[in-house]
Amino acid sequence: MDQYSAWMAEALAQAQKSYSEGGLPIGAVLVDPAAGTLGQQIVARGYNRRVQTGDPTSHGETDCLRNAGRRRDWHRLTLVTTLSPCIMCSGTALLYKIPRIIIGENENFMGAEDLLRERGVELVHLDDPGCKALMARFQREHPDVWNEDIGE
Amino acid sequence: MDQYSAWMAEALAQAQKSYSEGGLPIGAVLVDPAAGTLGQQIVARGYNRRVQTGDPTSHGETDCLRNAGRRRDWHRLTLVTTLSPCIMCSGTALLYKIPRIIIGENENFMGAEDLLRERGVELVHLDDPGCKALMARFQREHPDVWNEDIGE
Repeated sequence: MDQYSAWMAEALAQAQKSYSEGGLPIGAVLVDPAAGTLGQQIVARGYNRRVQTGDPTSHGETDCLRNAGRRRDWHRLTLVTTLSPCIMCSGTALLYKIPRIIIGENENFMGAEDLLRERGVELVHLDDPGCKALMARFQREHPDVWNEDIGE
Repeated sequence: MDQYSAWMAEALAQAQKSYSEGGLPIGAVLVDPAAGTLGQQIVARGYNRRVQTGDPTSHGETDCLRNAGRRRDWHRLTLVTTLSPCIMCSGTALLYKIPRIIIGENENFMGAEDLLRERGVELVHLDDPGCKALMARFQREHPDVWNEDIGE
């Protein structure tokens, strides 16, 4: 398994955890590519907790950055997310000048990728079948909860 | 006192609360302009809690929207904030399609106003001396904490 796929497997595990709790299956990890082992690389994990906690700002990526706490090394880190990041999560990544985002898929939802690209963030698309299948399943099972998540 | 100023006084009270706790003096309220009295109009309050809780996503506006909880009426609400909203808070407002933001001041910090305007959000500037003085005071007293807040 290459490094990107190993990171995405960690993000997908977060999404699966959320799904098992009845929440939106979107997960993220923040990694330090310069660290040694996979365990050392993972700086923070997070998942969408909007259903679980009632917090409308708790998307997967924003939850992950929240869990990363106060730090000054954002510019050296990579955000890995199972789904194309919405405008809130994109804005959060831009605020902290995270230079690279690895995206599991953007078939089930296209976020603010244009804005990220335009502001110099490197986007890497993995087109991951596992991310796609889980998200599609949730959208099919709970269309209302999904629409609420993206302000529709 | 006109309506906008009455709302801003509520947002500034949130900022002052944060300052008294040692945090960044940025506050916000979410209001329903169609409701009756001021008390009925205030849907949620919030302030920057990054210093207090260690949560880097807890800017004033995002904290306020978090406190508003899960809802479907964002498109009828107005966000009132003491300081020009950064790209994260702007993204959060855009996600939920909040149509209007009332801004206390943008002298001490200019947020993502271009992005908000470009996407059709109505911005109202109050150029409020109280908001300006409190923010300037914090920036003078704690330049490092301020810079960390905006990803510098």
